[in-house]
Amino acid sequence: MAMKLTIKEHSPGITDVPGFSASGVACDIRGTGDDRLDLGIILSETPCAGAGVFTQNDVCAAPVRYCKSLLSPTQAFHGIVVNSGNANACTGEQGEKDSVIMADRTREALSLPPKSVFVASTGRIGRALPMPKIEKGIREAAMRMTRDSAGGHDFARSILTSDTQPKTVTVRIESGEQRYTVAGVAKGAGMIEPNMATMLAFIATDIAVPQATLHASLNRAVHGSFNRISVDGDMSTNDTVILLANGTSGGAVSDNADLLDAFHKAVGEVSNRLARMIVSDGERINHVVDLHVKGAKTEEDAEKVARAIGNSLLVKTSWYGNDPNWGRIVDAAGYARVGLDYNKLNLHYGEIPVLVNGTPAEENLPQWKAEVSNREFTINLDLGMGKADYKLLTADLTEGYVDFNKSE
Amino acid sequence: MAMKLTIKEHSPGITDVPGFSASGVACDIRGTGDDRLDLGIILSETPCAGAGVFTQNDVCAAPVRYCKSLLSPTQAFHGIVVNSGNANACTGEQGEKDSVIMADRTREALSLPPKSVFVASTGRIGRALPMPKIEKGIREAAMRMTRDSAGGHDFARSILTSDTQPKTVTVRIESGEQRYTVAGVAKGAGMIEPNMATMLAFIATDIAVPQATLHASLNRAVHGSFNRISVDGDMSTNDTVILLANGTSGGAVSDNADLLDAFHKAVGEVSNRLARMIVSDGERINHVVDLHVKGAKTEEDAEKVARAIGNSLLVKTSWYGNDPNWGRIVDAAGYARVGLDYNKLNLHYGEIPVLVNGTPAEENLPQWKAEVSNREFTINLDLGMGKADYKLLTADLTEGYVDFNKSE
Repeated sequence: MAMKLTIKEHSPGITDVPGFSASGVACDIRGTGDDRLDLGIILSETPCAGAGVFTQNDVCAAPVRYCKSLLSPTQAFHGIVVNSGNANACTGEQGEKDSVIMADRTREALSLPPKSVFVASTGRIGRALPMPKIEKGIREAAMRMTRDSAGGHDFARSILTSDTQPKTVTVRIESGEQRYTVAGVAKGAGMIEPNMATMLAFIATDIAVPQATLHASLNRAVHGSFNRISVDGDMSTNDTVILLANGTSGGAVSDNADLLDAFHKAVGEVSNRLARMIVSDGERINHVVDLHVKGAKTEEDAEKVARAIGNSLLVKTSWYGNDPNWGRIVDAAGYARVGLDYNKLNLHYGEIPVLVNGTPAEENLPQWKAEVSNREFTINLDLGMGKADYKLLTADLTEGYVDFNKSE
Repeated sequence: MAMKLTIKEHSPGITDVPGFSASGVACDIRGTGDDRLDLGIILSETPCAGAGVFTQNDVCAAPVRYCKSLLSPTQAFHGIVVNSGNANACTGEQGEKDSVIMADRTREALSLPPKSVFVASTGRIGRALPMPKIEKGIREAAMRMTRDSAGGHDFARSILTSDTQPKTVTVRIESGEQRYTVAGVAKGAGMIEPNMATMLAFIATDIAVPQATLHASLNRAVHGSFNRISVDGDMSTNDTVILLANGTSGGAVSDNADLLDAFHKAVGEVSNRLARMIVSDGERINHVVDLHVKGAKTEEDAEKVARAIGNSLLVKTSWYGNDPNWGRIVDAAGYARVGLDYNKLNLHYGEIPVLVNGTPAEENLPQWKAEVSNREFTINLDLGMGKADYKLLTADLTEGYVDFNKSE
């Protein structure tokens, strides 16, 4: 039967998914004495299948190691506890213990079985977690768990660091009378994160999905979204994406191919929307750039070229200046060293030709300038070497970024 | 016999080498109507052995392709013609022709044999060279060739773009009554070059050196110097290093092992000094950082870690802020993905311990801050995995850099 997908951004997020409750509380992890929400819990009373994708940084934080240790084909999960303000990274054995304590206190407060709670932390690195505050916060958050939209909104706020706004999206899947939900929440502000550019995302669904399918779906979605955003080229010690499926809708992907397809699409949409929100939320960025490199021999080559361009300081500063500087783009493409031939390059800003087989279409200069002056614009670079392509979502480099990040 | 090396920076450079003359003239390549020197020639009336190392960017400029075409084991060279203000890159067939014309006009004006003149260009890319101005400039420069120090100084100024000062160094080699010279001149200001971070360097000697030895010596020197500076991670379309040896001193490395050794050392010194001048001359940089990664399994691993740190925006902005942020350094080291173990890391700012086997030596915080507030400082990171090391000379990232590069 046909499946209809409806997407809503800035939704309550997790609490839109039947069977999930959430909360967010203030426990002053930053020690600033204010009432900023900084600890949150997601809970499903029904056990969930769970999948996770984590940072590939050699230096990964204690909560990342803890989450990885939980993943097994047979493990059932009930929830996630998250704190902001302290990443619990580079914190030695104490850090490992603190992650376990966070999970255990959450389990105890909510009467959950062992190993059923994921842990995530984000914020400053190299400082021990203020555990008394965190344990108090967990007890309080556990008492405030709610399926109301307030729970989803509070959770979404509690995980933020330098983000200017919460990031949530809900996808409703409708098929006749049946209704399913996939919803997600994220934090991360790429280039403006003062300590680490940590990205966290949590996605939940009420569809029943076997663990292996869940992993495959999440991996594919992350590959097509969070792995294709590059704001400052830095990869954090704490990046974490977790997907939980509690099956309370009664719909199962294993006996419904249409639902499986709709589920994959919904997880992809949720991931894409959250990834775009992360790039867009750089309060000190002026431009969001969709970089599309095509005509490469292989996807790997296309990615190399896209990342060389998207991470080039000279390219990023020219975007900041609304300067349609194709020379810097071509130079960066060239040092990706995929063997490109300058005379085969075709470059467009949006739909406007910039280079036609290596020759600048100078008569379009006014349109180039207008295009790159938009807050969001697209760059299409065709290498003329093959049929593979790669899309990268990136941003400009501003004086504000440098100022913001010059000290903690 | 023992060889004594004396090094002098800010020397006349090329004209310090017996048998070499030089000049620099103004021909208004930028079209600004001022009398800025923008075209220069280096000449040896005696034929030279020559070696060159060039950008590895797929998109290399016409003069780079021209120079590469000249290199052969039997070719003798007489000189180099260089213009600044226009890189003659991404200029199609016309660009190729213009490089040949530059070489030919220089040869004609100085009565030199075919294929004996190298060509280099630096500046704006994607614009055809203003050939009438350049041809006039070549004629004038050819008439002004001089062995006086003024020639070396003028040449050094004529090749500059956004550099704030000329870059020259002279090494005298003394052995009893014998005296030999290796001298060099460079341009490049790394992060502040508004169009391309092009680096050009020209080195000359009066020692007789066979072509193959010359190549080996230059390759080794470039590997140890110009290839180990990273200011903004961008590699230009025009990077060029050329070494000419005219043999007028009468000393030949082929029959003097001590001289061969001294020659290698001198070429290394000239390259190192010029490379350091390039990094230091970022008028908008505040810090020059000697990054030393050791204890790696292989030199490749050490280089990966050094480049990840040296090119991390978060690390570079923290240096700008005089912020001893070891967390960002460790995070960047981690995403180089050489399999490092956080608990084996030993980090020093200068001589001051920062991390001892992964544990922060927090009691040193005031000294950390003092150290990274110096204009120049050293970072030593020991990975504790092996015996290989890599040194990278890099700089901070400032608001001034972003402002300077936001438009052409």
